[in-house]
Amino acid sequence: MSQPEIVPELAPLFHPRSVAVIGATNNLTKWGFSTFYSLMRHYQGDLYAVNNRDAEILGYPAYAKITDIPGPVDLAVIVIPPEKVAGVMEECVEKEVKAGVIITAGFAEVGRQGKAMQDEVLRAARKGGIRLVGPNCMGMWSASANLTAFMFPLPIMEGPLSLVSQGGNVGGALVSDAVSRGVGFQHYISCGCTADIQIEDYIEYMGNDDSVKVIMVYIEGLADGDRFVKKVKPVTLKKPVVALKPGKTEAAARAISSHSGALSGSDMIYDAAFKKAGVIRTETTMELLDVAIGLLTQPLPRGRNVVITTPGGSYGVMCADACATLGLNVIDLPPGVMETFNEMFPSRWSHGNPVDPAGDRNLIQYLKAPDILLRYPEIDALIFMGFGSFSGISAMLTSAGGQINKRLESMRKRMKGFEQTARKYGEMLDSGDHTQIREIIEIGLGMLFGSVMATSSSDMEEFINMVSDALTSEQMRQSSFFKGLKKLFDSVAEGDLDAAKMADIMDLIAPMLDAIISHWICKYNKPVITTTFNEAVSRIGEGGHYPYSNAERASKVLAKLVEYAEFLESEGKKKAH
Amino acid sequence: MSQPEIVPELAPLFHPRSVAVIGATNNLTKWGFSTFYSLMRHYQGDLYAVNNRDAEILGYPAYAKITDIPGPVDLAVIVIPPEKVAGVMEECVEKEVKAGVIITAGFAEVGRQGKAMQDEVLRAARKGGIRLVGPNCMGMWSASANLTAFMFPLPIMEGPLSLVSQGGNVGGALVSDAVSRGVGFQHYISCGCTADIQIEDYIEYMGNDDSVKVIMVYIEGLADGDRFVKKVKPVTLKKPVVALKPGKTEAAARAISSHSGALSGSDMIYDAAFKKAGVIRTETTMELLDVAIGLLTQPLPRGRNVVITTPGGSYGVMCADACATLGLNVIDLPPGVMETFNEMFPSRWSHGNPVDPAGDRNLIQYLKAPDILLRYPEIDALIFMGFGSFSGISAMLTSAGGQINKRLESMRKRMKGFEQTARKYGEMLDSGDHTQIREIIEIGLGMLFGSVMATSSSDMEEFINMVSDALTSEQMRQSSFFKGLKKLFDSVAEGDLDAAKMADIMDLIAPMLDAIISHWICKYNKPVITTTFNEAVSRIGEGGHYPYSNAERASKVLAKLVEYAEFLESEGKKKAH
Repeated sequence: MSQPEIVPELAPLFHPRSVAVIGATNNLTKWGFSTFYSLMRHYQGDLYAVNNRDAEILGYPAYAKITDIPGPVDLAVIVIPPEKVAGVMEECVEKEVKAGVIITAGFAEVGRQGKAMQDEVLRAARKGGIRLVGPNCMGMWSASANLTAFMFPLPIMEGPLSLVSQGGNVGGALVSDAVSRGVGFQHYISCGCTADIQIEDYIEYMGNDDSVKVIMVYIEGLADGDRFVKKVKPVTLKKPVVALKPGKTEAAARAISSHSGALSGSDMIYDAAFKKAGVIRTETTMELLDVAIGLLTQPLPRGRNVVITTPGGSYGVMCADACATLGLNVIDLPPGVMETFNEMFPSRWSHGNPVDPAGDRNLIQYLKAPDILLRYPEIDALIFMGFGSFSGISAMLTSAGGQINKRLESMRKRMKGFEQTARKYGEMLDSGDHTQIREIIEIGLGMLFGSVMATSSSDMEEFINMVSDALTSEQMRQSSFFKGLKKLFDSVAEGDLDAAKMADIMDLIAPMLDAIISHWICKYNKPVITTTFNEAVSRIGEGGHYPYSNAERASKVLAKLVEYAEFLESEGKKKAH
Repeated sequence: MSQPEIVPELAPLFHPRSVAVIGATNNLTKWGFSTFYSLMRHYQGDLYAVNNRDAEILGYPAYAKITDIPGPVDLAVIVIPPEKVAGVMEECVEKEVKAGVIITAGFAEVGRQGKAMQDEVLRAARKGGIRLVGPNCMGMWSASANLTAFMFPLPIMEGPLSLVSQGGNVGGALVSDAVSRGVGFQHYISCGCTADIQIEDYIEYMGNDDSVKVIMVYIEGLADGDRFVKKVKPVTLKKPVVALKPGKTEAAARAISSHSGALSGSDMIYDAAFKKAGVIRTETTMELLDVAIGLLTQPLPRGRNVVITTPGGSYGVMCADACATLGLNVIDLPPGVMETFNEMFPSRWSHGNPVDPAGDRNLIQYLKAPDILLRYPEIDALIFMGFGSFSGISAMLTSAGGQINKRLESMRKRMKGFEQTARKYGEMLDSGDHTQIREIIEIGLGMLFGSVMATSSSDMEEFINMVSDALTSEQMRQSSFFKGLKKLFDSVAEGDLDAAKMADIMDLIAPMLDAIISHWICKYNKPVITTTFNEAVSRIGEGGHYPYSNAERASKVLAKLVEYAEFLESEGKKKAH
């Protein structure tokens, strides 16, 4: 398939060899300061300051006009009063600038007069074929050029997402939150009044960039809904596009017109357009990011049948309710599974879906359950609850201190004679020798779980297999799981294992779970969505898995995965993932 | 009004002089270990371990039977296999125990046989008038006795909330999240199968405790809906009760029956019962905590008219949409306000509600806006967005480093001659001398805002008044705002003010905002709900204000405050707050 025209057209915008900031200033109280400052920290191409009063800006020589700049300029970032932009645009044409980012506000969003000024700017730009972002925007980021053309320094990092936002502060918040969650962007465009380049143009461009895996978009209003559907649908057939579109109410429609100057239009029309284009619609910023990360880290389910596993009943209830409300099938457990679990769990287990061992403290059995369930073809997806709750073991060991040290005495006695072995495996980990990785895992888990959990040897054998399968890939050898094992070996070798050290070593449980779940996702090619039971913001793990804070968020993500899978199926596409 | 019977009946449960843990053990893999451990760390009364094999448990002497304990026992915490509980209960009766917490599971929730065992336990208890929590629960907390009778150590702290939860892990998560947000509890009861004491009994008890300000409840099913309404309505007329009740779907109803043994019943019946009783219903754990904290920290609004102020347009749009969807009136601005703001803001401001200064960097003007709006009687509540975004100033100063140091040179020059003044006020703050607090604020803000913001002197005068009003109460004199000022004075006195120090000093902006907003809430007796624009979990500020992460959460809280206010009004009650 040939590239659409938009790809070469927007290349100078996303990969500029040189950038000029028109309106760069030393005055701390102006956006021209923070814009120039934001760019100079990261951008690696030629950067110029344009200011008609000062001779230097933040250590860079300043030019009175863009035409005074000696070298060529690909991109002009404009931060000057609105009435001066059209004149400056003429100069940009003269300078043969290829693209512009107009941060300046006060155009279409302020009414008729502003719209007239905006049209004038556009006319000037078109004379030179300059493509424009904005006006009235917060700027943009392009990973390939490390281009942080923002009106304010924003934390951002490279990654597989791209975002187009018609709102600067919603966009900025999404980017910051994504970074806190450990995921970055190829592109982020705050598109403002979209005088020239339209939202669907950006999406088309991002759709053609193979390093972009999921596209996020915040829309206040589209100029041409049919054009949007026409441009975006070919993209959604290749990769997911997730949208947030406020404006259901009259109050929001009024706010939109004064903000981005867009006509928000009937919500039903947008809903229909999104459905037609295969765009997944979300309701809040948190949900937008949740669903984007879900699409990034999970395969698409083959159907709506879900099984829930939970270490506590009430969150299982909340999750079953959330799933069923969203049209997912909380199916009856297959008969074979019932029998297996009757043998595996205490008799008080829930005997159904959600699977709840009802206070059984055997972590190993709880971890075996999903691996058993995912084998059944009638189960399309699994929600695994309590991802974070096992770290409570570590907290208890820390606080138990002295009391537990006594209990550890017997363990230390058992460990006598193992100093040599522990030293040997510790050295192997140190030297990066991974030839006996399964043995290292076996010895390590034996020492670990032998001490604080009652486990049968056959359970242990299965568990070692599970962990070995998950942790012997090249990537996983760098996991903090092995750092935890190293600490354990060192403590056994030195004979100084105490409660505080044990608590520290227990931190290997989180990366172990992350690796196991990532491994199940690959092995069964089914979504395995997890929850933590606490509100703190989670980060994507080393294995690439992202846990959500609660049942509602996890269920919503699964429902949206189903929605996208069904769209692709209705279009005759095989699953994209 | 006389106390209801439940108050003396449950007193030994909430204020036990002595506690015995039946099933305490040294075995790390059993709940009897973590339960005893959890209690011994905090409870200050007499604590006994009952175990028929070991002579001592975690350093405490162990008794084979509760009847072997020399002193009296008010409360028995039971963690032994279910089939043994009835027998032990007989012994508790013999020992004249007053109350019991049965952590053990395997009763009504596992079916007919379990229910029969549970009835047997109950019959035994009733012979001695023992009141029971559980069975199949995670335990309880009572602040007055520092009673952490949990099956697992749980972070908890004293505070004005109380929680009854029919689910141990939902309850535990709520408690942990509340502590992370900086708010604590008088009571937390994980009530499990509610064999004896019913949810409405706990609520009635908490309703009669003046130190409880808001009651939270997670319900899976009620034994007697009419009794619930009868007991709970007198409470909701005095203080708010917020509920979370899953079970809208068949899938959840099935999960409930295997979890807490409750019949979830028709959701419409619950909805009607909650309305009748004045209970505010929420949909998720996050919303339950959000609304409880809103009721704790905000006055009730007199009506549905809301104004939104936002430093960025798109979140204003999202917020207007969320408010209007929830039936709040995003009203037109009163004409007088329009004129004031036309003079105060740049001409591109939004000219409507939401009030958006559209990129104006003048923090002082943005802070003046709510104070102007709240005076209008037609405005019932305000949502103030971007509470956290001003801390970005501090981040920029930190990163700007060297470049900003140059700019600070001129400021340092201007500050020459102020060393003496700065030293004087620094010493006053050090010594706790608050007689000239307004002068301290004036000098401090002058030094601070004179340096990085362009402000007119009349703006500054008004701002100093605003901050002084907010920060001169006794409580606020301990605020970290003054710690920030102290740093500023020290740096000026030493002549070593640089960008890093400025960034550090900028941290006083957050406590200043918290104080100002708390002050508005008191001054106007109207809700002022704020948002941060990022997902990180917020803490209640020193002034008592809690910021939410986004527009939807803030709007939902306001809508629930309106709902409760309207209930009280319909009952002929004046506003309770």
